[in-house]
Amino acid sequence: MTTTATIVQSRNLYMAHALALVESEEIGENTRIWAFAHVMKDTRIGRDCNIGEHCYIEQGVTLGNNVTVKNGVNVWAGVTVEDNVFLGPNCVLTNDPNPRAYIKKSAGSLVETLIRANATIGANATIVCGVSIGRYAFIGAGAVVIRSVPDFALVVGNPARQIGWMCICANRIPMLVGQELLTCPHCQRGYRRGENGLEPLPAACDASIPGSTEFSSFHSVISTEPSVEG
Amino acid sequence: MTTTATIVQSRNLYMAHALALVESEEIGENTRIWAFAHVMKDTRIGRDCNIGEHCYIEQGVTLGNNVTVKNGVNVWAGVTVEDNVFLGPNCVLTNDPNPRAYIKKSAGSLVETLIRANATIGANATIVCGVSIGRYAFIGAGAVVIRSVPDFALVVGNPARQIGWMCICANRIPMLVGQELLTCPHCQRGYRRGENGLEPLPAACDASIPGSTEFSSFHSVISTEPSVEG
Amino acid sequence: MTTTATIVQSRNLYMAHALALVESEEIGENTRIWAFAHVMKDTRIGRDCNIGEHCYIEQGVTLGNNVTVKNGVNVWAGVTVEDNVFLGPNCVLTNDPNPRAYIKKSAGSLVETLIRANATIGANATIVCGVSIGRYAFIGAGAVVIRSVPDFALVVGNPARQIGWMCICANRIPMLVGQELLTCPHCQRGYRRGENGLEPLPAACDASIPGSTEFSSFHSVISTEPSVEG
Repeated sequence: MTTTATIVQSRNLYMAHALALVESEEIGENTRIWAFAHVMKDTRIGRDCNIGEHCYIEQGVTLGNNVTVKNGVNVWAGVTVEDNVFLGPNCVLTNDPNPRAYIKKSAGSLVETLIRANATIGANATIVCGVSIGRYAFIGAGAVVIRSVPDFALVVGNPARQIGWMCICANRIPMLVGQELLTCPHCQRGYRRGENGLEPLPAACDASIPGSTEFSSFHSVISTEPSVEG
Repeated sequence: MTTTATIVQSRNLYMAHALALVESEEIGENTRIWAFAHVMKDTRIGRDCNIGEHCYIEQGVTLGNNVTVKNGVNVWAGVTVEDNVFLGPNCVLTNDPNPRAYIKKSAGSLVETLIRANATIGANATIVCGVSIGRYAFIGAGAVVIRSVPDFALVVGNPARQIGWMCICANRIPMLVGQELLTCPHCQRGYRRGENGLEPLPAACDASIPGSTEFSSFHSVISTEPSVEG
Repeated sequence: MTTTATIVQSRNLYMAHALALVESEEIGENTRIWAFAHVMKDTRIGRDCNIGEHCYIEQGVTLGNNVTVKNGVNVWAGVTVEDNVFLGPNCVLTNDPNPRAYIKKSAGSLVETLIRANATIGANATIVCGVSIGRYAFIGAGAVVIRSVPDFALVVGNPARQIGWMCICANRIPMLVGQELLTCPHCQRGYRRGENGLEPLPAACDASIPGSTEFSSFHSVISTEPSVEG
């Protein structure tokens, strides 16, 4: 299996590395699946996804569109991943809160996890099942999440606690106690506090549509000022 | 290697996925070994084990019966795993407490780790070698264990500290300081403090034999009330 | 792919397991690459390296000589690994401090990480990009590193903080506040405080050359007294 060329097979409209094992029949166009990854049957994978090496996507899982799954990630049955989510390298998901090898559980007893659109799970973070990760939430590298995370929240540590907010533009917004309106110091987007974390003010809402031309302009902002772990 | 059907080979009495690499000659019946896993020669694997994808079982390792090894786990020489142990996804074991690439150590200098029967190691937990994980102990997801853990203890955090006890039925028993006798609030099993953590009172002892018919009744209890990370 | 013999192919002067995927043309002699590992093209791997199973070495990466990469490690573009570094099992490196799946970044915007010669990254540790890990530094198992680490520093926890120093001989040297000269209690090497952590005094400098006969004598010291997690 040593070879000097990467072999990529194009089947239908997605691509799979020759050393990937792909059994799903519902994979969107332009999705790429890399070596030693296994996508099981009865999974639904959106378009434009990138599934890294040594990943495992279990039967029953749904990944939205444009999801990035970095190397070494297992997505278990019971986990739902919405559009534009970033699953960092070796982050760990779960579906059983109190496993014992001698207690065999049925598929119906799995505890679910929901990762909302545009969220980021940092490298080597752990998500204990039964929680919801909010829209645009940002789980720092190595964090251990044991409760649900609000929209736009930035959490770090073990157990994870909130230390700020994370803008659509991927830069940090400080937590200002008692302040109803917040502005990103990097891109000037405005937010207000809502029922589940922050809500972008209307102008920012429009800008948050992935695929819009505005996203290319994010690049110069974020590449010059790395601010938090991820 | 892209295929639309999972191929499982039955050899003797155990099963190995066609993309697993199995070199051991001592594998018990009904054990299953999944894709991209490598079970080296000179390992001893019990019956009814489940060895997940991308696992590695190193030469010299012994796994007991009914051990669950979730995806992405490396079991190194020097680690002993007793019956009914659950090794959560991507949990990390070790056998060298102070590695340096320029100091080559002999196999004889490895530092051992013992994982006692019925224990659970949570997802992405780290076990520093030289410790013993007690019977029925429960290592929370993402915990970093640097000292031995008593029987039935529930530990979490980095470094891991005890926050409670974990019953045979996989539900949490609060730590009550100065109390010699404890009762599980979920299944009413009784325990007393012993030399190494808790000891089940006689009635619970009988119930703790895996394979007994009682275990099927655990299911309804634990699936309705997920209580701790794992 | 189930087989009872490990097949190792010798090509030029290095070895690759038959189930490794090796695309690099710059691999030093005596380097070994194991099953289900992927070494991409346009990587530079030194001599005497050991690249474990399920590893991934990305395009553009340079590994020095005698680097140990334990199982399950991804070395991303932007990470530079100097000679004699130990990358513990499942340790996690990164190259993007604030990833979002909907923000596509160019290779030029990756944030770099430098792991200096003789350093050790412990099992399941996480290194947030943009930092430098000092010479002989020792990152404890499960640590989450979010800032640069001085030479010879021993750091643990999430986030990682310094709790001592780590000698060339892989034993711990206590942090003594206000003391300019420090001596390893195990091997008696002397150090002084320098601009970036400790600096070995001249005698220790000579002893620190890997490959010198002195290194074999380390073994008896360290195998009898495991002192810190790694």
